[in-house]
Amino acid sequence: MSNEQSSQQAQRLAEQITEVLYAQDRASRALGIRIEETRPGYARATMVVRPDMTNGHRIAHGGLVFTLADTAFAFACNSHNESNVAASASIDFLAPSHEGDELTAVATELWRSGRSGIYEITVTNQKGARIALFRGRSARIAGQVISVD
Amino acid sequence: MSNEQSSQQAQRLAEQITEVLYAQDRASRALGIRIEETRPGYARATMVVRPDMTNGHRIAHGGLVFTLADTAFAFACNSHNESNVAASASIDFLAPSHEGDELTAVATELWRSGRSGIYEITVTNQKGARIALFRGRSARIAGQVISVD
Amino acid sequence: MSNEQSSQQAQRLAEQITEVLYAQDRASRALGIRIEETRPGYARATMVVRPDMTNGHRIAHGGLVFTLADTAFAFACNSHNESNVAASASIDFLAPSHEGDELTAVATELWRSGRSGIYEITVTNQKGARIALFRGRSARIAGQVISVD
Amino acid sequence: MSNEQSSQQAQRLAEQITEVLYAQDRASRALGIRIEETRPGYARATMVVRPDMTNGHRIAHGGLVFTLADTAFAFACNSHNESNVAASASIDFLAPSHEGDELTAVATELWRSGRSGIYEITVTNQKGARIALFRGRSARIAGQVISVD
Repeated sequence: MSNEQSSQQAQRLAEQITEVLYAQDRASRALGIRIEETRPGYARATMVVRPDMTNGHRIAHGGLVFTLADTAFAFACNSHNESNVAASASIDFLAPSHEGDELTAVATELWRSGRSGIYEITVTNQKGARIALFRGRSARIAGQVISVD
Repeated sequence: MSNEQSSQQAQRLAEQITEVLYAQDRASRALGIRIEETRPGYARATMVVRPDMTNGHRIAHGGLVFTLADTAFAFACNSHNESNVAASASIDFLAPSHEGDELTAVATELWRSGRSGIYEITVTNQKGARIALFRGRSARIAGQVISVD
Repeated sequence: MSNEQSSQQAQRLAEQITEVLYAQDRASRALGIRIEETRPGYARATMVVRPDMTNGHRIAHGGLVFTLADTAFAFACNSHNESNVAASASIDFLAPSHEGDELTAVATELWRSGRSGIYEITVTNQKGARIALFRGRSARIAGQVISVD
Repeated sequence: MSNEQSSQQAQRLAEQITEVLYAQDRASRALGIRIEETRPGYARATMVVRPDMTNGHRIAHGGLVFTLADTAFAFACNSHNESNVAASASIDFLAPSHEGDELTAVATELWRSGRSGIYEITVTNQKGARIALFRGRSARIAGQVISVD
């Protein structure tokens, strides 16, 4: 198999995994999160801040901004078809977001080795302003997302 | 005013703040999060894992576990009536939780000085097993939660 | 073997491991770090801030405060005689320390399961004031610290 | 003043600050850390792993890898001539390094606003392999590094 064929296969696999995971991911769907794009080690997800996503300071609840980033992280770290869960994550909140804002989380793989991976997720709003920086560490668990072997 | 009176006043203030913040916190209410107890620098919140809170691995979405912890953090760090928001937070996921689990997040103040505070939040399930450890750094913003001056 | 005997054995093992690791730990010794006490899952280490440990702001270099905490973490997470290294760590700097200050780092085990562990390390000065809060995640590697099997 | 002149001035200032801070930074000098380059919001530092920098597992002490990264962070976040200290930092250790390895830490500014900044520091060895990823949050304190106003 050529490099190009192998790369196309990896891409098709990433897309199939996205479909399977998303169909089961009731939480992300309930929040209106959409997976706009997946590639091996990469995912881009969007979410519109609904009125029921704001907190006591009348800004988007930080937990839901985290959830959007965490979803992008999940789709990126499962894209190789080894089941992975989040072991830990940290987030820096840079700017508030408000009702109606459309947030985009882009997850990229910084490093992957053995059972662990590290992913960087940046959350921006519709103006391109950065809302949050998220870093997640994944841990491989038994099994594949979809059976291919 | 005696120490006891001052302590009672701080407690009353913490409870009033909780009421005001919770009434505005549409996100926490939409997720069924309840604030069970607040004291100065302390908050305890609960959430039942609903079917629409599970992810592609059929466990509670880590983002929503984070959201519960973040809510407890918010009520603890605003309890002194200085408005505070989360500057950053980190979470370690220790064990998965499942549909129907009742999670409790307990937030305690580790340190507070000038414009910053550090809070420790532990999330447990109905059996007392630890689900996640969360640490948050708060940043004071202008204003009070409720006007008392 | 009774619980008491088993507990005494675990304590003796922790102390033997400390001796072996410390003899090899040239970095900690070069910094004057002393391991004052070890128990299973616990370690206490001290360091005096020397003139050559201060930075451009004339306070103790944060990296060396981290190093003291990291050393306590290492002795705590290796105390069970499974070789462990740090996978990640985070630190909050609460207050500066100065030349001549005697710092103490106390490491306690928050959680341990499979190949991972989480440890909390608090650094205080000679007046008992907290200087830094450190949290570390350990990863088990192959081998034991000392051969007992 | 043209953009180019302003940019040249910022660069000159960053270099002057580096000189002043480095002259006072006894800790970094004692560890053989060299500041190879500074620009506004950027610093590159190197350190050779000496025999007295290894730990009980015979690899470079994680605390000293952190210290190298923290030094690059310090020079990057002070480069604008507003005095800054580290408020918090986190590090992921990706691979061990050994006696004789030459480590390079590159610090870049991800974000800066008001009193806070976030910096990303990558530590590599002489083969270009990544050893550690570090993220630091700075806090502005009173004063300038060098008096220019």
